[in-house]
Amino acid sequence: MSFEFQVEATSGPARRGRLITPHGEVETPVFMPVGTLASVKGVSQDVLEQLGVQILLGNTYHLYLRPGVEQVRKLGGLHRFMAWPRAILTDSGGFQVFSLSELRKVTEDGVTFRSHLDGSQHVFTPESAMEAQIGLGADIIMAFDECTEHPADPPRVRQSMELTLRWAERSKKYFEAHKHEVPWNHVGSAEFADKTQALFGIVQGGMDPALRKESAERTVEIGFPGYAIGGLSVGEPRQLTREIVGSTIEHLPADQPRYLMGVGTPEEIVEYSGLGIDMMDCVLPTRAARHGLLFTSEGKISIKQARYAGDQGPLDPNCSCRVCTRYSRAYLRHLYASNEVLAQVLNTVHNLSFYLDTMRAVRHSIALGDSPHSLSEVWSRLKP
Amino acid sequence: MSFEFQVEATSGPARRGRLITPHGEVETPVFMPVGTLASVKGVSQDVLEQLGVQILLGNTYHLYLRPGVEQVRKLGGLHRFMAWPRAILTDSGGFQVFSLSELRKVTEDGVTFRSHLDGSQHVFTPESAMEAQIGLGADIIMAFDECTEHPADPPRVRQSMELTLRWAERSKKYFEAHKHEVPWNHVGSAEFADKTQALFGIVQGGMDPALRKESAERTVEIGFPGYAIGGLSVGEPRQLTREIVGSTIEHLPADQPRYLMGVGTPEEIVEYSGLGIDMMDCVLPTRAARHGLLFTSEGKISIKQARYAGDQGPLDPNCSCRVCTRYSRAYLRHLYASNEVLAQVLNTVHNLSFYLDTMRAVRHSIALGDSPHSLSEVWSRLKP
Repeated sequence: MSFEFQVEATSGPARRGRLITPHGEVETPVFMPVGTLASVKGVSQDVLEQLGVQILLGNTYHLYLRPGVEQVRKLGGLHRFMAWPRAILTDSGGFQVFSLSELRKVTEDGVTFRSHLDGSQHVFTPESAMEAQIGLGADIIMAFDECTEHPADPPRVRQSMELTLRWAERSKKYFEAHKHEVPWNHVGSAEFADKTQALFGIVQGGMDPALRKESAERTVEIGFPGYAIGGLSVGEPRQLTREIVGSTIEHLPADQPRYLMGVGTPEEIVEYSGLGIDMMDCVLPTRAARHGLLFTSEGKISIKQARYAGDQGPLDPNCSCRVCTRYSRAYLRHLYASNEVLAQVLNTVHNLSFYLDTMRAVRHSIALGDSPHSLSEVWSRLKP
Repeated sequence: MSFEFQVEATSGPARRGRLITPHGEVETPVFMPVGTLASVKGVSQDVLEQLGVQILLGNTYHLYLRPGVEQVRKLGGLHRFMAWPRAILTDSGGFQVFSLSELRKVTEDGVTFRSHLDGSQHVFTPESAMEAQIGLGADIIMAFDECTEHPADPPRVRQSMELTLRWAERSKKYFEAHKHEVPWNHVGSAEFADKTQALFGIVQGGMDPALRKESAERTVEIGFPGYAIGGLSVGEPRQLTREIVGSTIEHLPADQPRYLMGVGTPEEIVEYSGLGIDMMDCVLPTRAARHGLLFTSEGKISIKQARYAGDQGPLDPNCSCRVCTRYSRAYLRHLYASNEVLAQVLNTVHNLSFYLDTMRAVRHSIALGDSPHSLSEVWSRLKP
């Protein structure tokens, strides 16, 4: 098997499990750090390994523009290119096309867009998005979908959902015909013989539970080894996100992984794990770090504040990461205030460590039969 | 003893030795990476330890402005502030005042200058520069000197040299009266009981061998545990630098460390070690790294070049650093071309590793009785 999902423990709707991919196992529920351009900004791959990262996310749209899919393919795929031997997931490029590019035009065939870098014109279709993701060679790749904007009126949401369903079929068809072209399948190593990527479907349907149900059922009918919930965290209130997640999960198979795209805060990743989500990704820990916003077991800290200039204490007294065990708040504040690059490096390492520790505690809770309800509850177990 | 220098082997004028400081031993000849603002830009202290860095340089001018000497002193000194337990050297601030600040005015008393950050006005005198360096608490500190500009006419060079000599006396006098105020002397640990910093003198004298001789002899007469050669690498031709270094060294005590400030290229650090220099520092490896200029055993590489986009080989096949053993030139080129922060991090780690390996090989050469003559000769021994 190239891909497998094993549920090892459940607690209410929450599950603890394991994804088995061609590039190693991933314990779930998992938070996947975002490595947009084949790099988690500022953090070396050996540090990511030491943090216990088992799977990274890469952005197809960005990698397609720089360094280009063909370049990565010729170099053996993303794993070899970025010297990351563990699992990788790529998104389909759809979300970035919708959020970053200019002059986009959606037709039945696909999306025409202009690069945010140089204005050059490109087209993504379900087929070309699959071709790109096969060339990049992540372990898990995503069907090409349309991320429905919010708010949108009911006919628009249905029309967009129907388009995503037709694109899902085309994505699967292209993938099945070309999946053996993945670059690591060519290296001749017995380890990868006949192993292929896993293509996940994406559920859309806006903020309408009935459409979400229909989208889920019809996506499951097409058949994928895992399902993502897309089109959320697009500006709607959090309570609505929660409701839509809950009502979508009901219609997804219990024995397959569920991936909630683009969330969230530390509180949210605990909460969604409790609802039965297995995989999440978000730029929040890495992006916030670059702005000096640090997550701790005692709440958020804006390290730029003058009150930390003389603070000899660790960033988070309950955190055992390489930043908290070595550096003081005063030093971190100095680095940030002086615009030192090490500020970004250390802040990112801490925030990722906090997210990964949170997920470790969540998995531990589920194994003990305790459904994780809140961040503070989860961290109260980690405190000395 | 707070400070000691032991010569362990010589080969011609070159010496292999050991500095013993309150914060550990330093094998010489040594290249000291520059950590301007209490950080070697982009590199975490644990990585510096793994690279084998035994001594770092901090810039008094920069630290005086940000975060301020009093702040560092209150936090226990630079070592504690930046969580660096090994040796540190600070410059006197004089060189940066001359090269960075605006509207500077030199009088017998000292230098009035405006901050390059906000234009605020400050004064450095020999006494205040000592007070600052005692507050920062490096293991080795430097007398306050005037870096003579180049070119300068003979009367100006003499006048500047005489000023530096009078400032050297004042620096020593203030230091002797206040040396027990160093912050780590206050922590009450037996390890630091009665240990003080070591104050080095600085030889000036422009490009005139006779004035260099006089400056050296009169500085030695004042009496310091180590001597620096300042006022070089200020725009003069390399051949002249070499001559002045050679003719200054003759007049420095053989049993005390000699520090050549602000050099150099990999070729130069080998060459000056061969002339009998024990300590060097330069922003070149770290600054060049930020511009994608990488030093290798096979010559300089500008990683931004398109020719490296598909190059799967390591940056330097003869280098065993964490960058060369993991990443390809293609990946490093991609990071640089995409303006990823990891480019700066990895490039800096490699360049520092290259400098430190070069110095390791130089020390090995001297121990074997081979005076190191050139970079290629030194690296030919390191190749597999």
